Amino acid sequence: MTSVTSAEPAYKEYLDALLDAGVLIYTGVDGVYGKGGIFERVLDAFDRYVTRMGTDQHATVLRFPPVITKKNFEKSDYLKSFPHLAGTVHSFNGNEREHVDLLSKLEQGDDWTTHFVSSDVVLTPAACYPVYPTVAGTLPPDGRLFDVMSYCFRHEPSIDPSRMQIFRMHEYVRVGNPSHVRAFRDLWLDRGLAMLRAVGLDARQEVANDPFFGRTGKMLAVNQRDQALKFELVVPVCSTEKPTAVVSCNYHQDHFGETFGIHQHDGTLAHTACVGFGLERITLALFKTHGFDLAAWPVSVTQTLEL
Amino acid sequence: MTSVTSAEPAYKEYLDALLDAGVLIYTGVDGVYGKGGIFERVLDAFDRYVTRMGTDQHATVLRFPPVITKKNFEKSDYLKSFPHLAGTVHSFNGNEREHVDLLSKLEQGDDWTTHFVSSDVVLTPAACYPVYPTVAGTLPPDGRLFDVMSYCFRHEPSIDPSRMQIFRMHEYVRVGNPSHVRAFRDLWLDRGLAMLRAVGLDARQEVANDPFFGRTGKMLAVNQRDQALKFELVVPVCSTEKPTAVVSCNYHQDHFGETFGIHQHDGTLAHTACVGFGLERITLALFKTHGFDLAAWPVSVTQTLEL
Repeated sequence: MTSVTSAEPAYKEYLDALLDAGVLIYTGVDGVYGKGGIFERVLDAFDRYVTRMGTDQHATVLRFPPVITKKNFEKSDYLKSFPHLAGTVHSFNGNEREHVDLLSKLEQGDDWTTHFVSSDVVLTPAACYPVYPTVAGTLPPDGRLFDVMSYCFRHEPSIDPSRMQIFRMHEYVRVGNPSHVRAFRDLWLDRGLAMLRAVGLDARQEVANDPFFGRTGKMLAVNQRDQALKFELVVPVCSTEKPTAVVSCNYHQDHFGETFGIHQHDGTLAHTACVGFGLERITLALFKTHGFDLAAWPVSVTQTLEL
Repeated sequence: MTSVTSAEPAYKEYLDALLDAGVLIYTGVDGVYGKGGIFERVLDAFDRYVTRMGTDQHATVLRFPPVITKKNFEKSDYLKSFPHLAGTVHSFNGNEREHVDLLSKLEQGDDWTTHFVSSDVVLTPAACYPVYPTVAGTLPPDGRLFDVMSYCFRHEPSIDPSRMQIFRMHEYVRVGNPSHVRAFRDLWLDRGLAMLRAVGLDARQEVANDPFFGRTGKMLAVNQRDQALKFELVVPVCSTEKPTAVVSCNYHQDHFGETFGIHQHDGTLAHTACVGFGLERITLALFKTHGFDLAAWPVSVTQTLEL
């Protein structure tokens, strides 16, 4: 599953160091880790920092579980663009006879999951996805602004510790007219860069594209870049040539407005944008930059994070 | 899916009140809700209270994502006992031709999930499950004690707001010899009761059983009750006759020790027990008892919760 890159030995080396120190806990599946207390302490501290730095946004706080409804997922176009990253949730609705059959398959090492059928939910692909159906209808004149944080799932097993299959993203989401949304995007690109630099990370801004599926996807990616709809803040973690995106800022134009029926106060389709802080990636960048001994971190960093 | 009980009108009434107040956010699937800021504030406060009250346990803090490996899930016997509650995660590994087929099914309203195959992970059924494989091997003489918190999934759609399909559980887990484990269980049954009463909940202790599947399951349930292996702390939420289990305490004897190869210092199989605080249920019990206006809650409750 993993493509071979020049950074691969560096990924393995950092992953081993994280596992040896008990910062991450091995589970047997690449990209799915337990976390030690120290990891969570730093992650929580950055999460709260994102909240503090967004106080002036007067955001409506919403928290969604790590699954969204299949109905909204189907509407979202995710299956068109990123089918390879999705995770559907299946359940067993069988009777006792089918249960006996299931257990016999399990016993024989056969595929027992054929007894499981698709349920009403799908793993959350990005923290902002459950927000859009929630605001269907007509917005107030100034639009709306949300603060969300959620586990997200992307099926891309990798030995790069920064490329987890399941990770937390703290996002601000703006829904309004194009000028609301562009101002929000510009504000958070600058603010995000300042926030990362304030905790000692060597961050820079890049125009980016999503990992769209297939040949059609290549065109979508080129289009996204040409229109500068996606920006990332990247930080060297295991490689300076291939820095890791730790913050991403997407301008969706009226895509979600149209999909979920969100209208501006004047009746035209709403525009949306989001800025997402990848909490696991930022935490890994902090440990890589400052080491595993929090007592030895620069005072300016621990003060900024209120650690 | 929902069995009709006398409490049903009360479930619906409380759910409607929660949705009207924006404490919960409707998603279209029973048992899968977004949460408003006030819900998360109370839930976080109780979560931290569980941490504070366990300080004397000197627990090792671990945090796992809401999925566990399929391999460990298969080992765990969950498929024998609770197949109907499990959620497997499936992903799309197809090529571009299959993707075209998938999208055409989606377009026509057919079942596109047939293109999805079982991945390496399953939704976490209980917060303690990922702990046991992690401690395989020989324990130190005093055993070990863990603090875990995780989203858990149980496929049981219901209009009872306390019966969510996906919810958070903060657990302490004890791994050691039978006397370690029994002392732990007794300590937390008393402490849990005192904690709930200190925040104004009318809690009491009950012997309980898990919702085992099928006819064989009925016998397992009777056996579990006879041996008093499971206790619950219950609180009236929507009904006094059918109070809601908000804390559960399970003594697994040497089940997980045998399954995952966990041995006491003397080489015999380790015993395990866990106490789990159902954070969504406790939060719902608090709102039901004290109302949606935190400013009007009893001072003793807000002080205890450091709200």
